[in-house]
Amino acid sequence: MTSVDSHQQAAVLISEVGPRDGLQSVDATMPTADKLRWIDALHAAGLGEIEVASFVPARLLPQMADAAEVVRHATMLPGLTVMALVPNRRGAEAALAAGAHKLTMPVSASRAHSLANVRRTPEEMVEEVRAIAALRDGHAPEVRLEAGISTAFGCTLQGRVDEDEVIRLAVQCAEAGAQEVGLSDTVGYANPAQVRRLFRRLRSELGERAGAAHMHNTRGLGLANCLAAFEEGVTTFDASLGGLGGCPYAPGASGNVVTEDLVFMFESMGVPTGIDLEALIAARGPLMQGLPGEPVYGMTPEAGLPKGFAPTAH
Amino acid sequence: MTSVDSHQQAAVLISEVGPRDGLQSVDATMPTADKLRWIDALHAAGLGEIEVASFVPARLLPQMADAAEVVRHATMLPGLTVMALVPNRRGAEAALAAGAHKLTMPVSASRAHSLANVRRTPEEMVEEVRAIAALRDGHAPEVRLEAGISTAFGCTLQGRVDEDEVIRLAVQCAEAGAQEVGLSDTVGYANPAQVRRLFRRLRSELGERAGAAHMHNTRGLGLANCLAAFEEGVTTFDASLGGLGGCPYAPGASGNVVTEDLVFMFESMGVPTGIDLEALIAARGPLMQGLPGEPVYGMTPEAGLPKGFAPTAH
Repeated sequence: MTSVDSHQQAAVLISEVGPRDGLQSVDATMPTADKLRWIDALHAAGLGEIEVASFVPARLLPQMADAAEVVRHATMLPGLTVMALVPNRRGAEAALAAGAHKLTMPVSASRAHSLANVRRTPEEMVEEVRAIAALRDGHAPEVRLEAGISTAFGCTLQGRVDEDEVIRLAVQCAEAGAQEVGLSDTVGYANPAQVRRLFRRLRSELGERAGAAHMHNTRGLGLANCLAAFEEGVTTFDASLGGLGGCPYAPGASGNVVTEDLVFMFESMGVPTGIDLEALIAARGPLMQGLPGEPVYGMTPEAGLPKGFAPTAH
Repeated sequence: MTSVDSHQQAAVLISEVGPRDGLQSVDATMPTADKLRWIDALHAAGLGEIEVASFVPARLLPQMADAAEVVRHATMLPGLTVMALVPNRRGAEAALAAGAHKLTMPVSASRAHSLANVRRTPEEMVEEVRAIAALRDGHAPEVRLEAGISTAFGCTLQGRVDEDEVIRLAVQCAEAGAQEVGLSDTVGYANPAQVRRLFRRLRSELGERAGAAHMHNTRGLGLANCLAAFEEGVTTFDASLGGLGGCPYAPGASGNVVTEDLVFMFESMGVPTGIDLEALIAARGPLMQGLPGEPVYGMTPEAGLPKGFAPTAH
């Protein structure tokens, strides 16, 4: 069975963010050819959605200077949803021109983080979502727009983030034209009770527009938080191969949820991901070749699969 | 407020197994004085139950040669439940003589692991539980007896472990006189769906005698599995400071759930543990001094507590 078929059977969508979130948070720049090999390997393992690049000025993030080329390559992979991060209209124009299938915008619930990350207030970012939705409607109505509410569970700069404010911001993003609104634990502050509470409210407010859980493993709770979100009905989960990534503008942020461990959790629970775990672990090869010396994480790749492990059918 | 008071308010009991499970699985032997300092620090942090030693022949586990002295010291700490592992009658006699408050017996659901670990079949171990319960009834009726069903979620030697067999064995242990029967993921094979299923059955069969969840983090799912168990009503969780431990007779077993991360999870969820996280992290000091060069793990100690983190009241 091809990876495309298995995506159709998947009960959860694992959205790989390593080529964007991971690569932008390390100092080294992965050569374009290595990026393409890595993305090919991720696709071959059965990943149905990959956030492949960020459309930001190359002087700010030289690691993303080849964003357009990477997007163009990824769109040739059958069945793959190619996502790109865009912080503003200029980025959105470039991403649409390159052919991205889905745009994701970071909208921070923490004012302090929002100003540090994108130099705009949360309210200004909602207006940016509206402008990009209009741009999309005019030029490429088939492209999906996602808003990811970052620091939704707390912020290293301002500490606690008001839950009402998170939900209000999510609703504003949906009203401004985002088809999906996810919640991001940018700095690894979330706990399972809070995850249940916020996703329950999000789903109650937004219904089908309630989007992905983007969890970090900074304090070891990444998978427990994904489990809590799953049990609240969330079906899309961001994760990063080898746990690569973080946010360079949020001090102390580190460690996206490890894709390999997340897929192992779901597959061992009998929840189909459409992903071949052996092939996924093999996709660490091009990642490590393209970023020599960069540490990669993951308990499942180190321990190996259990004896007699039976993945869901592929 | 003293640790004794806070235990009474705790909603979950964290049972620290590092001084037994952790220390028996490293090659070095921690000097007795360091063990006592470490146990004192754990008690001072608010831990209400500590598995302090294993009563096995010193030629098999020289790390545990001072078991009686360690138990005698620990019983002087106010409010602490002092637990000791006993594989057989001879061990139980020594543990009772030393004054242990609670005995725990490993009863493996995997025949292969049982023979490797204690050189007895599961059926023979049930008879050993019965004999030790009789010994306890005659000499120290106030002492509690726990059976921990090891390899309850799978085994590196035999692979899959039949769930009916796990529950049958647990019931047999309770009928033989164990007041608590817990389930152990000795080799880190468990997943949250399986944890829910087995603890639900265990609680349905044994009611108040259903005991602790002993989870390993071998494949990164330790906390997610504890969360699943908690949501099924489990209130006692084994964990090891710094993640020290494993099982020397189960190839590939490593990594008890890290006490610091587990306590952070519950406290951040608003579930009182009675434990002071700062003091708990400080208890890593004597552990590291007593085992120089031994790696200790834990994401929360490395990342620090979140800004504005509010633990439950102590």
